[in-house]
Amino acid sequence: MQAAAHRYMEGILFTDMYQLTMAQLYYRAGLHESEVLFDHFYRRNPNYDSHQAGYCVAAGLEWLIDWMQQTHFHAEEIDYLRRQTSNAGTRLFADDFLTWLGKHGDFSGISLRAIPEGRVVHPNEPLTIVQGPLAMAQILETPLLNALNYPTLIATKASRITESGRGRAVLEFGMRRAQGHGANAGARAALIGGAVFTSNVGVSQALGLPAKGTHAHSMVQLFMTLGEGELGAFRAYADVYPDDCLLLVDTVDTLGSGVPNAIYVFEELRRKGHKPVGIRLDSGDLAYLSIQSAKMLDDAGFTDTQIVLSGDLDELVIWQILTQIAAEAPRYGVDPDHLISRLVYGVGTRLITSWGEPALGGVYKLVAVREDGHWNSAIKISDTPAKMPNPGYKRVWRLYDRRGKATADLLCLEDEDPRAAATLTLRHPMEHAKYRTIAAADISAMEELHVDVLRQGQVVYDFPPLDALRRQRNDDVERLDPGIRRLVNPHIYHVSLTQALWDLKQRLIADARAQAVR
Amino acid sequence: MQAAAHRYMEGILFTDMYQLTMAQLYYRAGLHESEVLFDHFYRRNPNYDSHQAGYCVAAGLEWLIDWMQQTHFHAEEIDYLRRQTSNAGTRLFADDFLTWLGKHGDFSGISLRAIPEGRVVHPNEPLTIVQGPLAMAQILETPLLNALNYPTLIATKASRITESGRGRAVLEFGMRRAQGHGANAGARAALIGGAVFTSNVGVSQALGLPAKGTHAHSMVQLFMTLGEGELGAFRAYADVYPDDCLLLVDTVDTLGSGVPNAIYVFEELRRKGHKPVGIRLDSGDLAYLSIQSAKMLDDAGFTDTQIVLSGDLDELVIWQILTQIAAEAPRYGVDPDHLISRLVYGVGTRLITSWGEPALGGVYKLVAVREDGHWNSAIKISDTPAKMPNPGYKRVWRLYDRRGKATADLLCLEDEDPRAAATLTLRHPMEHAKYRTIAAADISAMEELHVDVLRQGQVVYDFPPLDALRRQRNDDVERLDPGIRRLVNPHIYHVSLTQALWDLKQRLIADARAQAVR
Repeated sequence: MQAAAHRYMEGILFTDMYQLTMAQLYYRAGLHESEVLFDHFYRRNPNYDSHQAGYCVAAGLEWLIDWMQQTHFHAEEIDYLRRQTSNAGTRLFADDFLTWLGKHGDFSGISLRAIPEGRVVHPNEPLTIVQGPLAMAQILETPLLNALNYPTLIATKASRITESGRGRAVLEFGMRRAQGHGANAGARAALIGGAVFTSNVGVSQALGLPAKGTHAHSMVQLFMTLGEGELGAFRAYADVYPDDCLLLVDTVDTLGSGVPNAIYVFEELRRKGHKPVGIRLDSGDLAYLSIQSAKMLDDAGFTDTQIVLSGDLDELVIWQILTQIAAEAPRYGVDPDHLISRLVYGVGTRLITSWGEPALGGVYKLVAVREDGHWNSAIKISDTPAKMPNPGYKRVWRLYDRRGKATADLLCLEDEDPRAAATLTLRHPMEHAKYRTIAAADISAMEELHVDVLRQGQVVYDFPPLDALRRQRNDDVERLDPGIRRLVNPHIYHVSLTQALWDLKQRLIADARAQAVR
Repeated sequence: MQAAAHRYMEGILFTDMYQLTMAQLYYRAGLHESEVLFDHFYRRNPNYDSHQAGYCVAAGLEWLIDWMQQTHFHAEEIDYLRRQTSNAGTRLFADDFLTWLGKHGDFSGISLRAIPEGRVVHPNEPLTIVQGPLAMAQILETPLLNALNYPTLIATKASRITESGRGRAVLEFGMRRAQGHGANAGARAALIGGAVFTSNVGVSQALGLPAKGTHAHSMVQLFMTLGEGELGAFRAYADVYPDDCLLLVDTVDTLGSGVPNAIYVFEELRRKGHKPVGIRLDSGDLAYLSIQSAKMLDDAGFTDTQIVLSGDLDELVIWQILTQIAAEAPRYGVDPDHLISRLVYGVGTRLITSWGEPALGGVYKLVAVREDGHWNSAIKISDTPAKMPNPGYKRVWRLYDRRGKATADLLCLEDEDPRAAATLTLRHPMEHAKYRTIAAADISAMEELHVDVLRQGQVVYDFPPLDALRRQRNDDVERLDPGIRRLVNPHIYHVSLTQALWDLKQRLIADARAQAVR
């Protein structure tokens, strides 16, 4: 296949077929340029079987906007659609529609508000609000969900792993087990969520970061096959990288040969005035091996070299390792806190795939249609109340309590300003009997979460650099109640509706039910 | 970010950093052009918690080869490496190495043998064998694993879902929940594994297929918001697509309004001489709703319209639905076999992410180094015997028993021809006490699995069209014993070593142990 064919697959046809057939239907009905609002949101936090997330971290926005800015229909893509046939053998897409699509098939009419990347977000609040002409807003559904669901999933997992590792460095190592080219979006999301570096060179180049890594077992195997042994491999590495010498010590026998050989090489480096970086443990009982390795390194005077752990790590495995180190290290005369302070986590498969819950169920729902200059709110009725989206043009405010902790996210109608109220009613989004009131005096701060990103296709937002996104993630997590942050069985964070929004939703549901009966 | 930056991320730097640092080490040691062999294989079939695969289906090869043919170092990529610094602030990559990389940093020296796409494969046999100069064979590790692990995972899942659906059409609908651009490789793999079409337009264009789909809930919502109701939406759809009319009937009330409205529109189409395609059910009790829908459609004379099921389907869910239909349909006067014959499965999240096991643990291990014209076999010793790869240059033969069923895959040394033996010894790859002998007379056929794909970077293989890959998958699955095919608790397929390969492996392990002790 040609390179161009591969590029087209990531262009404007990176969408589902039904978006295009619906777009033609809207064109035929004269609705294709009707102004509509779609909300993008997810319904529940990831649940990894034995544990679950209490929050998510938004990610993916900047690359989505890049894609929207660069993407339009090329002649080859229109030609493909022209060749599609109905079951009767006639053309599926008519010339007038394809001409319109060739001319107007881009995202220049789209306005978009979003909760920025790196922010903590919660179920059932709009992360992204798309406003624009119906046909192109519809075609955007699939690429938008693809661009935001997966990065948000991975930034969330990275945040949890970073929390579990007590702030010690997390390196993203998952490229070989990633789901294809998703490796790139996943690596960037991991960096937003808390990973400090990735082994993925291309993404590091794109983001202006150094890429990180050590060496593979195959390097040691090679030197062994050539008769030079593990020590020969380590020496060769130290010769080329005297100031970056991080050695993988588990190819043969971790404590019997790997660590002693590493120490031997580190001593040579020290004599030459270089500071060795550390060792990597990739198999076996990582808690036990890290204690014993630390002891051997300490005894040789290498008290600050890193110990990089890797091999199917995730937040629970790291938690278990740290628990075991705290319990066992003193028995061997190793200070557990000092050992933990020298750990680095290389996290691969379970981060890049969000093992246990490998997809975030983000959806994209029509919430309003503009008619005669005002928004006509849409509802979808369902037997499952949780599946009824919150209607209309909304704003989302985060409320902080007197401790400065986030206590609820409040969904308001466009023209409501919760800062003006002396008392706020926070209604549960589905359950009539569940609500609470909160006095303005008990709220230390209120913050609107969305920013304007696109206005009529023009970028009106300065995308923050990666560092700022990471600080944002860290700040937002710090302002969560510890009950929301915990790794297992977290509290449920409140996402609430104002009384006015609740009333609108109930009225629309009743109207839709009545209409369905007719 | 610029479009070029996004493209570079999928170019030659789509690899792990340590591949590049190892490449420079090999360059420095004068080993970068030493000829080596790497085996790519996986160690166990996917295990989806409650159920597990008895085999995998190979996929991903053609796109890997496309990538290898198109990829080399651009000046911008060399520049990025030139800017990388050591911990001491000096340059990490020296000019002589970067000059070599700029000139020779492509895959023109690589030869590659592989088990073709669409073939059934098993753990611990080399799916891909890479032969070539060490530095570039090493850099290839990450992109090769990325390009083959995930598609093989998804082709396997698609094959299981197709088996579970009793050969009825499976449509791949997962793009919005895919892990980023992995959606494309995943869609193609699903098609190899048995899906008949995908909703992914870009991949369909690239593969020369039509893309498939219906319409979204949002279309019905829109017409409801405009006061035209579900019936108005269905009519609009039927007007534009009279010969492709497939209606999503669960936006409001499946049996109360969706199916009756669909039948009303189908009757209008019938009067105009068109044949309606069918309905789609996306929520609720799909078995019950499909029985009731079938009854309503039958009563209106639409006895052959399709019933497309979607909504978190996988092989177990489909199995459960078919079991329930077989038990309940007769109670409502519906013939279960006829109902099942009109079902179509739209499978999204759980196929494209391989829910339950979202990564295949494929690895890439050094197995031999060429010295003085002969292959010097490599071994990696480990406390876990299963982690010791099978050494040396190998061939893999599939043995079929008298029934024509595949009974074992036999790994041989390069110069062994199992067809010449009167009796074959099949040794377990790790356990000394486990072996069996098989007489040539009990073998109905023997087939070598690898084909030559690249010779010195030149493609020497005609990649079969998608149809041929699907037939191959189907033929191979048919030739598995039913015990291997079953969805839950499958038998273990034998992947065995010849006596000569077993002896080599044992000798190398003993040698490596002795060397480690020194």
